[in-house]
Amino acid sequence: MTNSNIEMLPPGTNIGILGGGQLGRMLALSAAQLGMKTTIYCPDPISPAFDVTPNKFVAAYEDEVQLTAFAQSVDIITYEFENLPVSAIELLAKIRPVAPGANALAIAQDRVAEKHFLGTRDIPIAPYQAVQTLEELHKAIETISLPAVLKTARLGYDGKGQRILRDAKDVEAAFAALGGPQLVLEAFIPFEREISVVVARNARGEVRDYDPSENVHENHILKTSTLPANIDVATAQNAGAMARKIAEELDYIGILAIEFFVVNAEGQTRLLVNEIAPRVHNSGHWTQAACLTSQFEQHIRAICNWPLGDPARHLDIVMENLIGDEINSAPKELAAGAQLHIYGKAEARVGRKMGHLNRLTTKIGTK
Amino acid sequence: MTNSNIEMLPPGTNIGILGGGQLGRMLALSAAQLGMKTTIYCPDPISPAFDVTPNKFVAAYEDEVQLTAFAQSVDIITYEFENLPVSAIELLAKIRPVAPGANALAIAQDRVAEKHFLGTRDIPIAPYQAVQTLEELHKAIETISLPAVLKTARLGYDGKGQRILRDAKDVEAAFAALGGPQLVLEAFIPFEREISVVVARNARGEVRDYDPSENVHENHILKTSTLPANIDVATAQNAGAMARKIAEELDYIGILAIEFFVVNAEGQTRLLVNEIAPRVHNSGHWTQAACLTSQFEQHIRAICNWPLGDPARHLDIVMENLIGDEINSAPKELAAGAQLHIYGKAEARVGRKMGHLNRLTTKIGTK
Repeated sequence: MTNSNIEMLPPGTNIGILGGGQLGRMLALSAAQLGMKTTIYCPDPISPAFDVTPNKFVAAYEDEVQLTAFAQSVDIITYEFENLPVSAIELLAKIRPVAPGANALAIAQDRVAEKHFLGTRDIPIAPYQAVQTLEELHKAIETISLPAVLKTARLGYDGKGQRILRDAKDVEAAFAALGGPQLVLEAFIPFEREISVVVARNARGEVRDYDPSENVHENHILKTSTLPANIDVATAQNAGAMARKIAEELDYIGILAIEFFVVNAEGQTRLLVNEIAPRVHNSGHWTQAACLTSQFEQHIRAICNWPLGDPARHLDIVMENLIGDEINSAPKELAAGAQLHIYGKAEARVGRKMGHLNRLTTKIGTK
Repeated sequence: MTNSNIEMLPPGTNIGILGGGQLGRMLALSAAQLGMKTTIYCPDPISPAFDVTPNKFVAAYEDEVQLTAFAQSVDIITYEFENLPVSAIELLAKIRPVAPGANALAIAQDRVAEKHFLGTRDIPIAPYQAVQTLEELHKAIETISLPAVLKTARLGYDGKGQRILRDAKDVEAAFAALGGPQLVLEAFIPFEREISVVVARNARGEVRDYDPSENVHENHILKTSTLPANIDVATAQNAGAMARKIAEELDYIGILAIEFFVVNAEGQTRLLVNEIAPRVHNSGHWTQAACLTSQFEQHIRAICNWPLGDPARHLDIVMENLIGDEINSAPKELAAGAQLHIYGKAEARVGRKMGHLNRLTTKIGTK
């Protein structure tokens, strides 16, 4: 799948970014570092990413006229989140290259397609079953047994669209709440910890993975990513190898994030892939402070078919999300010993990601 | 001079930046990292910094109507270069705070004022004499002796506005070429090496200096900055102490760069201050890759009266400028092992700074 003949996009390329949140904003900042121009497309007129480029489209993802004008105004298109209408991507892809491609996006948008894809590539995942009706749910529980987790196949994020089924009395209410018809029942995994790997691949087939981070969630929202993760070397290498394999199997272009459960089964450490995200990822923000090439710069390099940058981690680090009104004390109380990233969101709503800190925990390289 | 009562400017502050070159661009990118908005003021309609914000003024530095509108549209004003009309700064400062202040700017704009300031603060500098006429020049040569360097007092950069006087026959031509009347004759210093220190100070009186870089010029343009500099610990500490002292004596707000000659006199290493620049500086670009807080983020923190970030250097590094058409091979040949910064300039003219690389030379922390 390696192709070294594909042209590099030169500095001055205008990169269209779908989505105007913090990920789009940080992608645009890294694009600027590499001499690129950016154009942001987002329905929300006060999107954070609009503050870092003169070029924007404020329109719905269903607005074909505006999508067409956007595509015609840029050289290549990428996106900051996966819950985009596939119809929009298909329309855009007829006009300009879109990376990551529609295939990876379609798989990552649908938990059933994703699990099928991973399972058929011998990537270990939790037992699961697609479920459309209450009757199918009851049958799936016979196979998978309780406790289990019922999830919507599409549009879930930050814990939205999922319910834990602890015993039989939870089943009907959960089914009603999630409102089908595309659901998936997964075995409940009593994991030791959660880790993730961000991996980059470009169209020449170069693949580079970053060190695994150990992730802690609060209220289903990522709170911290810690490097190094508290796992043995073999497990870390295994996670990297799986991430690279998934990127290659998807013929992927850009940054891909892989979340894993670390499971201890009879004294053996095993990894199960929980989910994949076809974009830069919150659990990769630590790369901004501990690596020569951040995940954002790496994504821009990958989609522009540049040589990938060095993902080696030079320092131990903790990334901490600033959620809701935690942002208010950030400059005063937190900034001195940390690299601070504030997303420029107008309102600090409860549960909203407002910024993050990268704080070094050692000053000596570990890799 | 410490004042902890001065308010921090909050995220969302609109920072006006005079000058739309690469320094303004990188300041705007770091301002965005901290959640700030920016507005760029520059006469050149295709300025690199215009690509990283939706807010710009394209107007002359003498245009009082546009300067006034600019000042009224922002919360605080800073600048990327020191060759601004003092009249513009005075006008702006009546409407909004300007940092660094007019006093530091006036001193840095004029070599005679700068040398007088440094000399009267017991900062070691080369022997010098202000010169207005050819007669004064001849007299000054009697005191300082040849070889010596004749410089314009104002508007010099990248070697422009200076001539070396090796012997008596160079004198009249050099005087004619530089065209007076504000000149300064400096003793020619047979230095071992050139180093520089960037130092930050905020209005609370916090002062933090970065490690000295060793700088190599080609054709009077900075080519590389190397960390650590090849100097002993005492000399490095002395450079940092002088930089902090100068920042304090100037009651300075923001990043200040100090260039030194390292001189070996009878087996003793001595430092002489060559010049100071009241702004982020090319020789501080290495901080983007080897420190938690870059000079650009530090400048924004300083002028917004935030706690200063950690300037500790974690890695050994070389910064290399990409001059003129060196930029063309940068993505393909140079990008893999380096952090690449490209300024988005339209035309790669001879001698023009087009970008820079930060390349790590060790992976182990040294401080």
